[in-house]
Amino acid sequence: MDLIVQKYGGTSVGSTEKIKYIAKNISKLTKKNKSIVVVVSAMAGETDRLDKITKKISKIPNEKEYDQVISSGEKISAGLLSIALLEIKTKAVSLDPSKFDLLTDDLHSKAKILSVGTKKIKNLLKEGFVVVVPGFQGINSKGDVTTLGRGGSDLTAVALASALKASHCELLKDDVDGIYTTDPRLYKDAKKINYISYPEMLEMSSLGSKVLQAKAVEYANNLKVKLYVKSTSKTTNKGTWVMDEKSIPIKERKIITGVTHDLKQSKITVSGIEDVPGVASKIFKPIGAAGIVVDMIVQNISIDNKTDLTFTIPKDDLNKTVKILKSNKSKINYREIIQDKEIALISIVGAGMKTHTGIATRMFDTLSNAKINISMISTSEIKISCVINQSKCKKAIQYLHKEFKLD
Amino acid sequence: MDLIVQKYGGTSVGSTEKIKYIAKNISKLTKKNKSIVVVVSAMAGETDRLDKITKKISKIPNEKEYDQVISSGEKISAGLLSIALLEIKTKAVSLDPSKFDLLTDDLHSKAKILSVGTKKIKNLLKEGFVVVVPGFQGINSKGDVTTLGRGGSDLTAVALASALKASHCELLKDDVDGIYTTDPRLYKDAKKINYISYPEMLEMSSLGSKVLQAKAVEYANNLKVKLYVKSTSKTTNKGTWVMDEKSIPIKERKIITGVTHDLKQSKITVSGIEDVPGVASKIFKPIGAAGIVVDMIVQNISIDNKTDLTFTIPKDDLNKTVKILKSNKSKINYREIIQDKEIALISIVGAGMKTHTGIATRMFDTLSNAKINISMISTSEIKISCVINQSKCKKAIQYLHKEFKLD
Repeated sequence: MDLIVQKYGGTSVGSTEKIKYIAKNISKLTKKNKSIVVVVSAMAGETDRLDKITKKISKIPNEKEYDQVISSGEKISAGLLSIALLEIKTKAVSLDPSKFDLLTDDLHSKAKILSVGTKKIKNLLKEGFVVVVPGFQGINSKGDVTTLGRGGSDLTAVALASALKASHCELLKDDVDGIYTTDPRLYKDAKKINYISYPEMLEMSSLGSKVLQAKAVEYANNLKVKLYVKSTSKTTNKGTWVMDEKSIPIKERKIITGVTHDLKQSKITVSGIEDVPGVASKIFKPIGAAGIVVDMIVQNISIDNKTDLTFTIPKDDLNKTVKILKSNKSKINYREIIQDKEIALISIVGAGMKTHTGIATRMFDTLSNAKINISMISTSEIKISCVINQSKCKKAIQYLHKEFKLD
Repeated sequence: MDLIVQKYGGTSVGSTEKIKYIAKNISKLTKKNKSIVVVVSAMAGETDRLDKITKKISKIPNEKEYDQVISSGEKISAGLLSIALLEIKTKAVSLDPSKFDLLTDDLHSKAKILSVGTKKIKNLLKEGFVVVVPGFQGINSKGDVTTLGRGGSDLTAVALASALKASHCELLKDDVDGIYTTDPRLYKDAKKINYISYPEMLEMSSLGSKVLQAKAVEYANNLKVKLYVKSTSKTTNKGTWVMDEKSIPIKERKIITGVTHDLKQSKITVSGIEDVPGVASKIFKPIGAAGIVVDMIVQNISIDNKTDLTFTIPKDDLNKTVKILKSNKSKINYREIIQDKEIALISIVGAGMKTHTGIATRMFDTLSNAKINISMISTSEIKISCVINQSKCKKAIQYLHKEFKLD
């Protein structure tokens, strides 16, 4: 019998109506002779509510106890969904991680899954039960509840799909019905992608496409678990498969899979620095120490032994970064700092780049034809990113989407 | 070292401020060299909220899953209180019933406690931890969560106090600071009782004094666990000890311990029935079958082989009872039904009645002097109850309270 692991997020179980609705869909699946394990998040808002209450008592709460409190929401959802399934005569049972041994390490609130016990679940599936598992949590060797961090329910689902050798892992979304070639809100001709490889998906998600957490995609990649992203409500719509590049049917493979953008970056130029070894380290060491993630770095050609260094950091960290640079002015010895918040990072992503040449040139030409100036460039094996002016972001998406025949 | 089990109800942990407040009090106790196990209820309103959500999904939810959902509130409270204690540098740990084996039978939502594992708790206490236990729940032999029914957290506390051989079990209340000789809202000279025996407390609580659930008092009586009812906020106020009659200091023993009243009863007279065997059964069988609890029953002297039968039932069941009687009119064969909602049940409770005579007469004389008519009388070993007109309730309390020197 075909085994599927399904995961429903917080919005999908956000009300009793929605829980009843997904119970109906799961029930239909069981009638198609499918074995189903369901992973659920807490009802939308519940985890934040518990976090807020806890933080009122302690700003840095004890980690073990915090996980005990914060993991309740998923347990409640699991019980409620089981009740909803039983109400419509579908055999179901909620099963806590402590009951089937989803073991993690000791790192509370960012625990790593070490192993997943399958015996109990397999027995329940054999008896015809839908097994409903609270996501986001496991237990450590002492039997204490641990949590897996943001997006942890996706990790639970992937781990279960791998351990149970499920045919695939379905991630059901309330707000989207798959992965798109670009943001449909910015470009109406965006198309749903049928197949995307893990590394492509990683590039898409790290660039601000919030459909899947990068952590879950990486984890699925490592465990070679096929993901299927689809809509909770539009059940007949096709979704998007995320899988190994080699498993994607040849006729579905594209040179460029998508165009993504990121408006959350800002740009800093440190000008008039000496072009000597160690100067970059002097700049980036204190920034890194402050926990600020630098993305792109470009250094200009040196003139009279002086050069400029430009890099991007999240907009939220801009002021902090400028402050750090200013307090290190004498040490770094620069002329001035130029900051720019009005930037967009625009990228094309595609595994086909590895085997096709001239993609970068096509991108630069396309932007040039659209009269869009490029201020920074960065490339990876399956991605080319350009920093442009924020006001040109929409136009850039439109031109690139057409150029690479994604319409 | 002295071991105390404390139990805090939903109002006492009803906000983060209150949780922080009780954490401070517990911390103070630990500095007095006390070992403390704390049992907590869910934050006020939380259990009702979860019940409401669940009932929206299923009117008769699966019992196992219902208990899984409904037991979350106490687990959250236990985590939060531990965090609050740790925040003020008091060693504390929350401990689920599954972790120390608080085993119950399989009767979900009204489970009985079968045994309480003490090893883990004792070890933690030895290491200097305050152990915080979520009340109201246990696990059955399969490891599923079960719940103990209304007032279940009191039962958890009593069971733990017994298993751990605690010196006593403290029940901390947010709204009252002990048991009173009569309702202080109705009679300002009501006095706090220092000592009361289990059976007296049972008579008091079954008569509408809502401070302690009868179930918890019975359980404490069976296990011979001393209870101490005190205020959460007025920590210096003395509370009330509930214990075995023999353990109460002789000078603290009273003939009459309290005067209680119950305004939730109503009275029905079925008149003109035949005085033959089996007629009472014909009346009470259908009433009992409908789940209606009849309290007092009085039958008049028969005249011409006809008699009247008067009984009390909860006000809420009055209409239902009258309906049942009317639909059975031909079978019972009565003349008429007289109903009276305007009654009060007034009772004096005291273990001293067993050894002192003339108490009933004193009660009747006192009511007579107050010009209060008695329409029904019922007596037990430690209680005498009279049905009077509701409007005279306050006056009756006042006269009886004075007569039996409770002021």
